[in-house]
Amino acid sequence: MRTGWSEVSLDVDRASIVPIYRQIYERLREQILAGALPEETRLPPERTLAERLDVNRSTVVHAYRDLAADGLISQRVGSGSRVASLDGGRPDRSAAVPWWVTLPPWRVGQFPAVLGELAASDHGDSIAFVQGVPPAEPSPLGDLSRSFARVGGDVRFVLTYGDSEGYGPLREAIATRMRGRGCAVDMRDVLVLTGSTQGITLVAQSLAEPGDEIVVEAPTYPGALQIFGIAGLRAIPVPVDEDGMRVDHVEAILRTRRPRFIYTMPSIHNPTGATMNADRRDRLVTLAKRYGVPIVEDDPYGELAAAPVEPLLARDAEYVIYLSSFSKTIAPSLRLGWLVAPRTIYERLLLRKQSYDMASSMYIQAGVREYLERGYDAHVSALRRELMQRRAIAHAAIDRWWPATMRVPKNGDGYYLWATAPREVHARALLANAERRGASFLFGEAFFAQTGGDHNFRLALTPVPRDAIETGIRRIGEAAR
Amino acid sequence: MRTGWSEVSLDVDRASIVPIYRQIYERLREQILAGALPEETRLPPERTLAERLDVNRSTVVHAYRDLAADGLISQRVGSGSRVASLDGGRPDRSAAVPWWVTLPPWRVGQFPAVLGELAASDHGDSIAFVQGVPPAEPSPLGDLSRSFARVGGDVRFVLTYGDSEGYGPLREAIATRMRGRGCAVDMRDVLVLTGSTQGITLVAQSLAEPGDEIVVEAPTYPGALQIFGIAGLRAIPVPVDEDGMRVDHVEAILRTRRPRFIYTMPSIHNPTGATMNADRRDRLVTLAKRYGVPIVEDDPYGELAAAPVEPLLARDAEYVIYLSSFSKTIAPSLRLGWLVAPRTIYERLLLRKQSYDMASSMYIQAGVREYLERGYDAHVSALRRELMQRRAIAHAAIDRWWPATMRVPKNGDGYYLWATAPREVHARALLANAERRGASFLFGEAFFAQTGGDHNFRLALTPVPRDAIETGIRRIGEAAR
Repeated sequence: MRTGWSEVSLDVDRASIVPIYRQIYERLREQILAGALPEETRLPPERTLAERLDVNRSTVVHAYRDLAADGLISQRVGSGSRVASLDGGRPDRSAAVPWWVTLPPWRVGQFPAVLGELAASDHGDSIAFVQGVPPAEPSPLGDLSRSFARVGGDVRFVLTYGDSEGYGPLREAIATRMRGRGCAVDMRDVLVLTGSTQGITLVAQSLAEPGDEIVVEAPTYPGALQIFGIAGLRAIPVPVDEDGMRVDHVEAILRTRRPRFIYTMPSIHNPTGATMNADRRDRLVTLAKRYGVPIVEDDPYGELAAAPVEPLLARDAEYVIYLSSFSKTIAPSLRLGWLVAPRTIYERLLLRKQSYDMASSMYIQAGVREYLERGYDAHVSALRRELMQRRAIAHAAIDRWWPATMRVPKNGDGYYLWATAPREVHARALLANAERRGASFLFGEAFFAQTGGDHNFRLALTPVPRDAIETGIRRIGEAAR
Repeated sequence: MRTGWSEVSLDVDRASIVPIYRQIYERLREQILAGALPEETRLPPERTLAERLDVNRSTVVHAYRDLAADGLISQRVGSGSRVASLDGGRPDRSAAVPWWVTLPPWRVGQFPAVLGELAASDHGDSIAFVQGVPPAEPSPLGDLSRSFARVGGDVRFVLTYGDSEGYGPLREAIATRMRGRGCAVDMRDVLVLTGSTQGITLVAQSLAEPGDEIVVEAPTYPGALQIFGIAGLRAIPVPVDEDGMRVDHVEAILRTRRPRFIYTMPSIHNPTGATMNADRRDRLVTLAKRYGVPIVEDDPYGELAAAPVEPLLARDAEYVIYLSSFSKTIAPSLRLGWLVAPRTIYERLLLRKQSYDMASSMYIQAGVREYLERGYDAHVSALRRELMQRRAIAHAAIDRWWPATMRVPKNGDGYYLWATAPREVHARALLANAERRGASFLFGEAFFAQTGGDHNFRLALTPVPRDAIETGIRRIGEAAR
């Protein structure tokens, strides 16, 4: 019954942007139409072919369904799939497979659960150094509640959608603040976002197509890697050291490849805490212009730097698309961020943002705009001090409780510490051990597009009470011994 | 200098899912590698080729850039593009074109500005029957503010992201309400959204790929058409009459084509106000199962029906993906909606939702959850009465002020009236005339995927004060004469 079948070649090209089910469909189609697979030839069962090609069964199901729908094969329960008579009509479609079996290929990153884990807050009694959320103290709540109460009385804000670009007075306030950080921003350059994660998806879907390459830092924010994975982008990693992204590596890549954009967090990098030095900033912007590749500057933490730092955007407004957020300076639950983009692509980003959620909540926008004038600056100053104190507590605890072979650079800034365990300690094994002792962190592999991070992990110092930091670090130290 | 060039064929296939710039690149590449375009052949200037092929200049720029980057042609300012020497090295890339010239193809719907227009609220002094926003009265504000004040005091809600699936107690409350409408929904089937527009993009990007076909109603919600356009989907239109979608047309389509899903608004359809009858509902669900094509049920208005109506979801939970929203029952500025999806695809939708905004605002979710117990039901009842009164006022005004040749069915429900002008009156011309007299509406073509709607228009009865309805309708009537 397998006559003809075993002779035909059916390789799949995993590097191709053509989905694998489509490749299978196309190769079989060719061979059927060319007569290499004659009428009544029995195709291998879906499971068998899936194993042979090392693909999901649903991939083969999908390919077969398309062949059946085109009348090229017939499928009968119990007797499998056979090459159809090409002069007959279309086969009966009433025996269709369930629709969810033949969905488009499901692209996700290496660790699909990671974004959800970064959002979820329930860690039981564990001291969980996991989420990048602001500390409970200093709390923005008092002034924030008063700000919301003030706008809550104005019916216009609560009932309408508002402009998709964002609430005018908020865009103006953001532009003014960006000018204070050295960037020549007009309010018309500002697009309000429902969190800066939305901005990452926005550039991933607007500036690139599935299969395109982009440059990312290694390590980098796992949420961004997940988003790039869903968008079908291929990330080329570039190392980060204490002075930020290794721009010499970026240059080597741009000489031979054509990435769609360079994704970087130059100020208080997540997870290393490093800030890119001025020479590299100059060089990076120069490279972007020479090779015609834009920079996506993700800057949720820059305002929290101990010493003020200018965004890359201050150096160039045509080749830098800037993203930021109020999640790390006020509260993530507001889901409010913004981007600054050149006029050349503003409209394109705006229309796609509309497709995600029409416009960001006017209620939230108006409340935050009030708060920017009310308590924001004092809160950010207090938060900056709190972060420095937490870092000092954590470093002292590490010096005291961790083996000297576990390295944590002291030069960084912001919410996180990036630890390197000795070669014989796998970070995921350490995590399992630490969890049993009541402490947890995010393992390093989640921060790398391809390989790397096996011996690294990130401690978020903010989601736990300040006086739990030393205990948590001690538990991890005990787990490491 | 054009030797060789004029003989080569270079057609583009506009129906192909391969982007046109890529088609141009591939055809030229073939011909260069095959020697049909020998070394030093001058390619036509970008503008010339763009005109010849009737494409945007940037499409050709993009194709040429890729050819140059592959070393197949060389580009020099002033002397244009020539076929390169194939044994040489890569050409100098330092003369790269600006990055925004070579972005991926920009796909939008037929009327890209329409979503923004539906969101924007500033219409000056005009009586604008444009936006689908709840009326100013009855106002939910009193109870809503009290609900927000109650959650504002709880630090956990304001500081964290919360689960991407949504806030547990809100999901539970939504599931309970859905069960009250005849649907067997568990809270784990509910995914909270930042407005139901987000749900439309979610299904468009998760269940289909660019180039895929879907079935839509004609007319239908212009925002959905815009989203499907951005996602690269091809919409097959099916007419709507006073009993809803013409399901016999759906059947004819499913017999010969393989759409990815059927997008329908069966209860208080936008813009016609029609509700699908029971026979058609049965038949539609049967067809979905027979042909293996899921139904996307968009139901932002169903709860406002004068007589209670069960969602399609009540008939089948495996072939129906249900979307709804609090935008039309409370306020759009909350940006809060939800979907109910089968377990087979819940995870897929969840991960993509995370890429849009991590999670919906916990602050908003907690506030609305309070309000669901506090004032929601009374508000929805009052809103239902208000809508019926507004419809009565509008129909009376139409009878009085409009020529009898302008037809508006009286059987509908909800926010909108769908008007048909006589053949000699183009709705966009009528709009221009009405705007001069201080009234406006949304022209009918925006509601059709392809052609249609030239003589139709939609009146939203809710964004204007109740006592302005008659004046606005009179102005449109005067414009029509």
